[in-house]
Amino acid sequence: MRHFLTTEDWGQDELQAVLDRARALKAGASSSALEGKSVALVFFNPSLRTRTSFEIGIAQLGGRGIVLDARSGTWPMEFEPGAVMDGDAEEHVIEAARVLSRYVDMIAIRCFPKFENWEAEREDPLITAFSRHASVPIVNMETIVHPCQELAMMMALQEKLGDVKDKTFLLTWVPHPRPLNTAVANSAILMASKFGLNVRMLVPDEVYRLDERYMSAAAENCAAHGASFDLTTDVEAAYRGADMVYAKSWGALPFYGQWDGEAPYRAKGSGFMVDEAKMSMTNNAVVSHCLPMRRNVKIADNVVDSPAFLGIEEAENRLHVQKAMLEALARDSETI
Amino acid sequence: MRHFLTTEDWGQDELQAVLDRARALKAGASSSALEGKSVALVFFNPSLRTRTSFEIGIAQLGGRGIVLDARSGTWPMEFEPGAVMDGDAEEHVIEAARVLSRYVDMIAIRCFPKFENWEAEREDPLITAFSRHASVPIVNMETIVHPCQELAMMMALQEKLGDVKDKTFLLTWVPHPRPLNTAVANSAILMASKFGLNVRMLVPDEVYRLDERYMSAAAENCAAHGASFDLTTDVEAAYRGADMVYAKSWGALPFYGQWDGEAPYRAKGSGFMVDEAKMSMTNNAVVSHCLPMRRNVKIADNVVDSPAFLGIEEAENRLHVQKAMLEALARDSETI
Amino acid sequence: MRHFLTTEDWGQDELQAVLDRARALKAGASSSALEGKSVALVFFNPSLRTRTSFEIGIAQLGGRGIVLDARSGTWPMEFEPGAVMDGDAEEHVIEAARVLSRYVDMIAIRCFPKFENWEAEREDPLITAFSRHASVPIVNMETIVHPCQELAMMMALQEKLGDVKDKTFLLTWVPHPRPLNTAVANSAILMASKFGLNVRMLVPDEVYRLDERYMSAAAENCAAHGASFDLTTDVEAAYRGADMVYAKSWGALPFYGQWDGEAPYRAKGSGFMVDEAKMSMTNNAVVSHCLPMRRNVKIADNVVDSPAFLGIEEAENRLHVQKAMLEALARDSETI
Repeated sequence: MRHFLTTEDWGQDELQAVLDRARALKAGASSSALEGKSVALVFFNPSLRTRTSFEIGIAQLGGRGIVLDARSGTWPMEFEPGAVMDGDAEEHVIEAARVLSRYVDMIAIRCFPKFENWEAEREDPLITAFSRHASVPIVNMETIVHPCQELAMMMALQEKLGDVKDKTFLLTWVPHPRPLNTAVANSAILMASKFGLNVRMLVPDEVYRLDERYMSAAAENCAAHGASFDLTTDVEAAYRGADMVYAKSWGALPFYGQWDGEAPYRAKGSGFMVDEAKMSMTNNAVVSHCLPMRRNVKIADNVVDSPAFLGIEEAENRLHVQKAMLEALARDSETI
Repeated sequence: MRHFLTTEDWGQDELQAVLDRARALKAGASSSALEGKSVALVFFNPSLRTRTSFEIGIAQLGGRGIVLDARSGTWPMEFEPGAVMDGDAEEHVIEAARVLSRYVDMIAIRCFPKFENWEAEREDPLITAFSRHASVPIVNMETIVHPCQELAMMMALQEKLGDVKDKTFLLTWVPHPRPLNTAVANSAILMASKFGLNVRMLVPDEVYRLDERYMSAAAENCAAHGASFDLTTDVEAAYRGADMVYAKSWGALPFYGQWDGEAPYRAKGSGFMVDEAKMSMTNNAVVSHCLPMRRNVKIADNVVDSPAFLGIEEAENRLHVQKAMLEALARDSETI
Repeated sequence: MRHFLTTEDWGQDELQAVLDRARALKAGASSSALEGKSVALVFFNPSLRTRTSFEIGIAQLGGRGIVLDARSGTWPMEFEPGAVMDGDAEEHVIEAARVLSRYVDMIAIRCFPKFENWEAEREDPLITAFSRHASVPIVNMETIVHPCQELAMMMALQEKLGDVKDKTFLLTWVPHPRPLNTAVANSAILMASKFGLNVRMLVPDEVYRLDERYMSAAAENCAAHGASFDLTTDVEAAYRGADMVYAKSWGALPFYGQWDGEAPYRAKGSGFMVDEAKMSMTNNAVVSHCLPMRRNVKIADNVVDSPAFLGIEEAENRLHVQKAMLEALARDSETI
């Protein structure tokens, strides 16, 4: 039995097999991999695309998705072993994971970090605890990484560019009114580096470095492919010759949960919106962003509405890559 | 491809065809018009009947409904073109509509007006924007009109009265603790007038006129049928000889969003509850109200519990007319 | 047509037949008892297991469950006959029950008491009103009793102990930060007594007696079986020789809704957590608790994690007993 918690646990070949299968599914292949099976979709945070694409994808595989809204529909959950549960939590993840494992054949979880304590939250404690106590496969629907989005992005990139090896991938920080989760940024560099692209990160300041876990993993992936991995604050150096621009905003980890001190660094990126002038410096790059996306704050309307924008295709691909991944997990699982 | 945003866009013959099909479905006809298809049901406001009847109706047609609770389950949405999205909205309806169109085969939307600015809200901006950017049919589950309720009402009326032409339809304002959306009132006069009934509106004061868009449309419909269209504040004149009494409460548009000034006008209607004394003035009329309905505030118990009350039948008909309308849209749509 | 509101309305033989069928279903028997049917699942309170197990169970029987979140997804409801509805409630249960009966084939309801007025709430007014006005079977998903949990508990007990007659069942009050609903405690003594176990209740003080309706019913059930029924505040007397320990916390009815005065009595039970020392006094007893359950507050980790703990099995059994009960109701119902 295997989980899909992070692409760090999966080889490039394995992920490429999932992508290839996703392309076949997008082209119309049918599958009954989940015939008569159920998947719990547990949401600790809101969702539009994830929920819809999982629920429909599961149904298209012959199964049924049960959406559990863990913000309001269920009880607060404890995940520390040995906790004396005299606080808010009415239930331990041990029981939740065991019981759900009796009812369903897979459990997918969305649980964003709480912006309280990065040292604890960088361990992704809730989904990790679920994976320890469940007896069915666990799928990550976004925690501190967003591996389904990674697959969808890579699928869109391969659809457009074919072989992506040796192309140049730019992850650019973009403005947003609030500091956000680093999950999609972590995921973008994990995936681009795993597939052999040269990876550049453009940030307003060094404080926007991602967690060392992901910086190191990406650097090692790039090195293994003979590709480069760079972090820069120089807009022109970053955009020059890029083949793909991936936009994302995130909060600087040194100010995690106490964001007031971040304001001056954030101000340095006020001109970082993706626009036509910046895109003109690239190698005729494609551009994308996971959705939701603030128009004219992160990316200018005329870039979003141009043929270079892959965001809608990437969003559609969520459906196909998730179906392919659920198929793969069902095949590998003794419980299915 | 065609949307069902308002009955204003549909001819009487087309709507009658939907009603005829609904009657066949109610009598037991089966249909697999949505076999293997999905419909997103997007709710910006609460629902009991609408949600249940859509979800079950879609399933009975062989499809699957995905309920998206847009109050809490998804992101706030922008719908102005060109907006610089630095406020609350995380997502533009352009992306939401395009992406949902990749996942599902139809999108149904409930979005009540916000009681902030009638000049803007009378354009029904959210559902209109969705219909512009989606590539699948859009269905109105109540915005500033409630066209599914119109169909259900007309079906109940035809079941009871047969040919409704030249009958007299009274829309009476009734008390309620708060000012409400005008959607069902707008819809009642649109539908009754389209089917050739004489239409009377009984209101406590002229300030309760509905928006001119609907007053004019109803007056023109009536004129085209040689039927009468009247607004009155005289209870006896309104009820005398009526064949159907439709009860509904709504807020007066001149006080839209600043309701304090409405109180003295509202007080004039304190005796407007539908009761046996008023019903005795009619031509043995039937009576109805969309649900939910406050008993003994809008309609007295002994009228609700009498055989003249069509409200339960009308509510059941929601299931049948919606199935018939979804069938019609699926037939007309290239995407289905 | 028959409802499942409380096990008080069902004989031991009838319940045993449901349990026997549940065991067959757990062993793999299939059923299409709800083929093409729909069940409304109406939740006035949160749920993890109940919702998931009902939704999956209904699907496994060939039907479809429609989850209605009555806390936020629908309108507040009135249930007093003749009420002048000028308060918060927009809808009377009469209309809700009648309309849902037109759409679905069964209605399951969760509605906890409000902790306002036990004299009124002990009549279980909402589900009772639903059962009066609906024309389809009503199923209790927990109100002031929790009959599905009773069946699941008895099934787990019979799986472990075989014939339970003449065994000794201890319901022990356990600590919890807040006063809780008495439903599961009421249910535990109803069910254990109906199946002929000797029933002991361990409470910190006499003020934790359950409502006389349930105390009398349990005492009568025990008497009919020649079994004993005791309430004690003596921990050792309670545990000594017990075959099953069932843990549950609840609020003392004399302080219902005005809990401040309960604190000194609650303090007397501060040592009532189920732990190894207490378990060592039993007749090698099994132990259980409905979920959710606070570890190390209600039951110590080393008891929960021991083979004596039946809580996960009991939770799984919810799926099987509910399927068996829905089958039985469908068989008895003219509407199905």
